[in-house]
Amino acid sequence: MLILGIDPGSRVTGYGIIDASSGDETPVAFGTVRLDTSDSHPDRLKEIFDALTDLICEHTPDALAIEMPVYGQNPQSMLKLGRAQAAAMLAGLNQDLSVAQYTPKEIKKSVTGNGNASKTQVQYMVRSILNLEKGTSGFTHDAADALAVALCHSNRGSHGETQSYTGWASFVANNPDRVSE
Amino acid sequence: MLILGIDPGSRVTGYGIIDASSGDETPVAFGTVRLDTSDSHPDRLKEIFDALTDLICEHTPDALAIEMPVYGQNPQSMLKLGRAQAAAMLAGLNQDLSVAQYTPKEIKKSVTGNGNASKTQVQYMVRSILNLEKGTSGFTHDAADALAVALCHSNRGSHGETQSYTGWASFVANNPDRVSE
Repeated sequence: MLILGIDPGSRVTGYGIIDASSGDETPVAFGTVRLDTSDSHPDRLKEIFDALTDLICEHTPDALAIEMPVYGQNPQSMLKLGRAQAAAMLAGLNQDLSVAQYTPKEIKKSVTGNGNASKTQVQYMVRSILNLEKGTSGFTHDAADALAVALCHSNRGSHGETQSYTGWASFVANNPDRVSE
Repeated sequence: MLILGIDPGSRVTGYGIIDASSGDETPVAFGTVRLDTSDSHPDRLKEIFDALTDLICEHTPDALAIEMPVYGQNPQSMLKLGRAQAAAMLAGLNQDLSVAQYTPKEIKKSVTGNGNASKTQVQYMVRSILNLEKGTSGFTHDAADALAVALCHSNRGSHGETQSYTGWASFVANNPDRVSE
């Protein structure tokens, strides 16, 4: 089973595909879609959508897993993030992929055992799990985050349990430390 | 020139197509895409995308104009609105339509002459401008808002500059035949 993980952003979107068919997960492809910030927002959405559609058509993953943005940022940032996220989701949905969403805390906990792990810790663990050499080309923070989402989905899938956050109340209940205001 | 106006929302998305080829704008199609709130968010995005793609393929509009959400709402609302907006934009972009964005204030000012007009005032003016009978089927608040976006784009585009209806009084003076009550 190939899993495409995505860490969407309005400037940089990380992606990572892992093969979770055997016991060990192995990396298939990873990298970042860097968007020209001089482009209009609709153009950027189309760039994310097209780049991910190409990636899906090339590698034909079986599932798409995406990082849900952190709450508590300002409304305009959330608007932009929501748009980028939708572009990534629709690229998958239009190719008949299932779409799973995970919070940053779930992803960090799944990969490092600590829901409050730093970006460096996540990157270190992703590199270790996937046996990537230090300094591997394309293994940026954003690509590592995307691979972490794919690994999180692989871990969830193997246990047959999924969890979804259905609203602010349940989010606060499950993530008291993420509420910043 | 056919213009598709869209008022996106995560529960209800209004749409309205006007023909702005001649001097007077005429309505071509309008209505709402109501989403099943029991569906997951990715499913809702796909429903918006598919419904608007069908609409675009049926009517082949020349441009898409969309209402930008109001700022200052809570972050989670903005995230959902951003997603719905992206689904609408991508439906247009994937059919090679240009996408224009207008704020609610710009739209209200363009249609009623008052950037702070009420929903009822906008609905009244849209109905008057497009010569729609009172109680026309499908002419909901959301459809009216979408038609208002299309009218706003028509006003902007035809003169290459911002043009707005300057108010109810001047509208009546300039369009005595359109006042039906």
